[in-house]
Parts: sequence; structure tokens; C-alpha cells
Amino acid sequence: MNKTRPIAILGGTGPEGFGLALRWSQAGETVIIGSRDSKRAQDAAEKIKQRAGPSAKISGSENVAACRAADLLVLTIPFDGHAALLKQLKPAIRPGSIVIDATVPLAASVGGRATRTLGVWQGSAAQQSAELVPKGVSVVAAFQNLGAELLNADGPVDCDVIVCSDDPSASQVVRSLATKIPGVRAIDGGKLENARILEQITALLIGLNIRHKGHSGIRITGLPPAAYEVG
Amino acid sequence: MNKTRPIAILGGTGPEGFGLALRWSQAGETVIIGSRDSKRAQDAAEKIKQRAGPSAKISGSENVAACRAADLLVLTIPFDGHAALLKQLKPAIRPGSIVIDATVPLAASVGGRATRTLGVWQGSAAQQSAELVPKGVSVVAAFQNLGAELLNADGPVDCDVIVCSDDPSASQVVRSLATKIPGVRAIDGGKLENARILEQITALLIGLNIRHKGHSGIRITGLPPAAYEVG
Repeated sequence: MNKTRPIAILGGTGPEGFGLALRWSQAGETVIIGSRDSKRAQDAAEKIKQRAGPSAKISGSENVAACRAADLLVLTIPFDGHAALLKQLKPAIRPGSIVIDATVPLAASVGGRATRTLGVWQGSAAQQSAELVPKGVSVVAAFQNLGAELLNADGPVDCDVIVCSDDPSASQVVRSLATKIPGVRAIDGGKLENARILEQITALLIGLNIRHKGHSGIRITGLPPAAYEVG
Repeated sequence: MNKTRPIAILGGTGPEGFGLALRWSQAGETVIIGSRDSKRAQDAAEKIKQRAGPSAKISGSENVAACRAADLLVLTIPFDGHAALLKQLKPAIRPGSIVIDATVPLAASVGGRATRTLGVWQGSAAQQSAELVPKGVSVVAAFQNLGAELLNADGPVDCDVIVCSDDPSASQVVRSLATKIPGVRAIDGGKLENARILEQITALLIGLNIRHKGHSGIRITGLPPAAYEVG
């Protein structure tokens, strides 16, 4: 259903963005990796082509150019660059675009711990995005809890993706995208304000990873089958 | 290992406390249900005896008396009564006791939504407890994400219990208690400060329950087997 809409992954040379780009490339999606440095973006795209095969529709370019070329925009950047990147991208974001925010306001981004989050005035990084995007652009929070190590490994991931947005149709688009990653069950998590909880869960999972030396994820149990969307 | 230590469940006539009392009674533990009203506590104990069988070591009494009779104290009260109850209990809490806090600061407790939490100055209800208990008493955060419906149903629950405390040996005692509930895997979640995330997860799960009409729980994936303690 999404094959015609390219996905731009802004900050896509970091491990989280790279992993999402890899998985969606493997699923046949058209993916543009964005980076401050177009050469780094192209190098990352080349690496993904080596793993996903020569037919992978993957390219790399500078963030603003990547943004102009797509209307599915994924933010996978450290929180300290979050607001600045959105301000830079704003003139390039097309009306009707969907901004998919995977950013977590880890205290590590200001020199603190990765097991703690910063308080964001708007409630969450995703809600900060909602304040910074142009009118007519929907923000969807997702993928915060799906660790880079899982994405960059082979095989299915053992993790659910909870998707939160105030725009139900944008949420549905992102849930469909999520289910293209093998192993993912996508769950409608309701309004964007719930993103604050998803963002904090990441800090918990990072703490569990450090304490127990693992690559943790979450699964939600006890919902009726229709609540779990799978690819 | 715990058979000699009675467990007092303060606010144990509510659905969460009742469910924990039921499960631990069924596991052979000695349980005292505490309530503001000793008659209500005794009635709840009687109901549990009917379900757990006549050999169940379950009784009911007023909260302060229940507290005096045990050194494993479980708080399962609405947040609006949390600080007041702890202040009332303080003189009755024995040195060396463990306070197990399952309280969630839901906005519902002040007339708001059960899908939102209040900001607690100390960071979480459990950290508020840590400030209110006598010196030498350890606070452990646990059971927030294990819904009352699951506890009060028959059969194993499909939910992990993440346990957070600044006292590692108290955390271990509570993890052992948690694994007496069939289906539970107990996970050391590190320091008490992480309770703020556990408490928020409950609001997320309540939101999912409303949206999808289920009784949700969480499972943590991807940790090594030793991280999951089972009964």
C-alpha cells in the first residue's frame, strides 16, 4: 500500500535510523537516508544496499533535500538536535506530510544518563514536534522502544510498536509501516500525548539492558487479536 | 522462604489489593488485609477464604493494626490517600520493614483521567513513600502494571513484574513474592527512581484497555534467562 511513498529518515546515519532504513529497504520500500553530511548519508545508503541487495531502493542525501523528496519523514536524532532540525526542515516539509517521531529526550543528550529522561515542556519530544511542524502536517510517535541492536540484527524483532497520534489516518499509515518490520505487532496507542510514556519506556529498557546485559523490548499482552496489527 | 513473614496489604479491599491477597493466599502465604474499616477487611478476607480454601491463612483488620502485625507492607490505595495513609501508619511501621508500593498517581484520583498521571514532586508515588517512611524502612516499587482483573481471574497472569528499589535485598524479597503469582516473571528494574516509569506504564495500559477492550499487561523481551525470575 505504501510502495509509492518514499520514506525520508532524517538523522538516518545513526544506529536507530540506519536500522529502520535497513528493515524498510528489505521490505521493498523506497528509503532516503538524510544526514547533515550528504556524503555520510550516501555511504550509509551504500552499506544498506550491500545488506538488502542491489534491488533495494535506497539513497542518501542532505537532510533538507531528503525532506523535500518525501512526505513520510522519520526523525531519529538525539534530542539535543531535535528542535533545531525541525526548524531547519520546516520550509521543506510538504503539506500533508507525516512526521514520524522516534526521538527520546534522554538525559544523555545533555551529558546525563541514558536511563533518565529530560522533562519536555510540551510533555514529550513528539509533542514538541507537533508544535514545530507546519500546519496541516501530522505528527506520529512510534519506534522509540524498538532498539537499534534489534533493528540491525538479522531476523524478526521481538517487540511491539505502539503508535500514538492525534491524526487517526496518519497513525494507521505508520502502523502499516511498522508491520513491514518482521516480528513487529503494531498497536494503536491513542493520542499523541501518550508519547511521553513511550519515550520513558525507552529509558527503562536502556536501564534493563545495562543491568542485565541484553537487548530488551516490550510486548503488550491481554488485548484482543484485532488490536495487534501484523504484516 | 517467606512462609514465616506475614504480608499486610493496606488498602487491601480494593480490587488490586484483593487480587494480590487472593494470589498470595493461594500460594500459602500468611496475608492480612488492611482497610480503614475492619469489618470490610474481614469481609474481604472471608471472600478470599471461599476462593482459596479453608486452609488459607488470611485475615482482615484495620490498617494500623494490620501494619503492626507484619513487616511486609503492601500499599494498594488510590493516590489521593497515599501520603495521608503513610503518615498515619508511620508510628506502626516496624524497623526493618519493607514497604511495597503499587500505587499509581493516576489523574483519576483528583477527578482527571485514568489514562494520565499526576506529576509527583519526588518523581513517583514510590519515591514519595521513601520520603514518608521511618528511617531503616526500605521502599520497593512493584505490581503497578499487574492489573486487578488479571489478578482476580483464574489461572496464570501474562505479565512481568518489574521491581525497583534502592535496597537490593528488599528488592530480592519482593521479586520472590512476585514469582508466587503464577505466570509472573520478576525482573530487577534497578533503583527506586525508575518507579516513575512503571507508574506511567499503568496509565498507558489503562488507555489500551479502554481503546481495545482488553486487560493488558507487559512482557519484557530480549534479556538473558537469568534476568527473569520465576516461581
